[in-house]
Amino acid sequence: MNIGLDMMGGDFAPVEAVKGVRLYLTQTENPANLILIGDEARLGPLLAEFEIPAHQAQIVHAAQVIDMHEHPTRALKEKPESSISVGFKLLAGGKIDSFISAGNTGAMLVGALYSIKALNGIQRPTIATIIPKENGDTGLLLDVGLNADCKPEHLNQFAILGSLYAQHILGIEKPRVALINIGEEEGKGNILAQSTYPVLKENSSVHFVGNIEGRDVFKNKADVMVCDGFTGNIILKLAESLYEITQAKSIRHEYLDQFNFEIYGGTPVLGVSKPVIIGHGISHELAFSNMIALAQKMIDTNLVNIMKNSFEGEGNEPTLNDRL
Amino acid sequence: MNIGLDMMGGDFAPVEAVKGVRLYLTQTENPANLILIGDEARLGPLLAEFEIPAHQAQIVHAAQVIDMHEHPTRALKEKPESSISVGFKLLAGGKIDSFISAGNTGAMLVGALYSIKALNGIQRPTIATIIPKENGDTGLLLDVGLNADCKPEHLNQFAILGSLYAQHILGIEKPRVALINIGEEEGKGNILAQSTYPVLKENSSVHFVGNIEGRDVFKNKADVMVCDGFTGNIILKLAESLYEITQAKSIRHEYLDQFNFEIYGGTPVLGVSKPVIIGHGISHELAFSNMIALAQKMIDTNLVNIMKNSFEGEGNEPTLNDRL
Repeated sequence: MNIGLDMMGGDFAPVEAVKGVRLYLTQTENPANLILIGDEARLGPLLAEFEIPAHQAQIVHAAQVIDMHEHPTRALKEKPESSISVGFKLLAGGKIDSFISAGNTGAMLVGALYSIKALNGIQRPTIATIIPKENGDTGLLLDVGLNADCKPEHLNQFAILGSLYAQHILGIEKPRVALINIGEEEGKGNILAQSTYPVLKENSSVHFVGNIEGRDVFKNKADVMVCDGFTGNIILKLAESLYEITQAKSIRHEYLDQFNFEIYGGTPVLGVSKPVIIGHGISHELAFSNMIALAQKMIDTNLVNIMKNSFEGEGNEPTLNDRL
Repeated sequence: MNIGLDMMGGDFAPVEAVKGVRLYLTQTENPANLILIGDEARLGPLLAEFEIPAHQAQIVHAAQVIDMHEHPTRALKEKPESSISVGFKLLAGGKIDSFISAGNTGAMLVGALYSIKALNGIQRPTIATIIPKENGDTGLLLDVGLNADCKPEHLNQFAILGSLYAQHILGIEKPRVALINIGEEEGKGNILAQSTYPVLKENSSVHFVGNIEGRDVFKNKADVMVCDGFTGNIILKLAESLYEITQAKSIRHEYLDQFNFEIYGGTPVLGVSKPVIIGHGISHELAFSNMIALAQKMIDTNLVNIMKNSFEGEGNEPTLNDRL
């Protein structure tokens, strides 16, 4: 198993990425082999300094870097030697089994959608985030920003993808799926939520438990929470800011510590043909290490194939009805 | 000045409402005259017990109560003697200058929209909430649930109504208006946000400062934050749950205390022809007292007339273009 890591992505790369690699290798019983993508001249001395064994991690040189604020498609085109471009080339060619970067999010999404493609039957790949629950458990929220405008069938697919992720990665046997809404009863909400409810209710491949409201997001009411990417992104960033604000104010509590995104590593892209994980720009050692561990788990559990089988055949239908 | 208060609304009515009346009367220098609407047989002894002076507060009998879970329009029709129905009758007839209830939210909204009507030119009345900022200031968020699906012109009107509220009630001289979005630059977001940005930019009657993201909601980036009622309701309820969760876990800090909605009293309905305030079902003494104080301020500042003048003439146009 080879996991590719963009060593140049993120505000604190490459040092924090190298430290993350060390942390992962020292604390993992059967670590994957790592392919470290980036500027060889900078990485070489760092790997030596942090004593990363060459039989566990090898450098693949990438002469360019896509900056955080570059235009994604343009940058991918104009910088074929960038660490992100090289990473997706290795992933598409089967040289690595998963690709991770804390670099330009847009470039990662474009790369995931265009170099390795969506699974057959998937209308819209999605990105998900872990939400810490009041009781110490974790739930999955999706979509968190890839699809700002959605149709009911998209949310229905997110529910399936999220359930499989919760089952195989989070270890939740029968994940409860809820629709994020502004009322508890069926019929409540905006047009999208009103139209999505019956679709989820009819979907026998997920365990739909109904609507949940904003006040339930951090409570133990559902394991998989689906919404459009506009709503999900606002919830995600709001949750992240809570950690930031409480840290800045020295409000300390183990519950608040759970809002530290580094614990969860990064955001998996779901519905594409290979595991891709996007890290936060401000990722440190812990986030990098956890992203590698997550990639390993996604490969170990064969999650992408499970998702593929679940949508098998759907791609053969002439059209998927969008019910909105 | 007569302020009408539904004494039967909310989970802890009428006792907490009576205590709220006492708190308001004892701590206000020039209190308004209060009209207490509800079951005379229950209220009489309570007012005596809490020593509410008859020259400052008089009971208007209402024989019925609309329960929290009744269907709003049906309940208003079938219970003409309910405290909410009586309240709106008094308000429409000019016997009271403002009406407050912590009862059935839906019935309050229907009452506000149909017994006292929207101001000329207002396409959609809206409800707003105070959001505590990291630096101790407060901002206004709207819509928080009255309008689940919106068009750009609705958000534009919310921006104007919110600015006037921030100016006259919150005392912010030149309120910064921001659009809640999932990216900072113009062109980002869902279709609604993309189409609303240019409308707000062109609106010379508000001080538009651009997009803000979920992570900025609790920060001091804007005074008035506009969004559709679906998004706003989820933010509102999530913020409320933070207070609940941190209280339950005994995480105490003055910053978290600001999330106690009772400080702000209730949610004003903006864009209607009289001040109406809707309280939370779990309102206690402090919330009731603060709602009365807010009603008084809305009357004192003549906010409704200021809003009316701001939209004057718009009602005469044949149609208002919805640009979505």
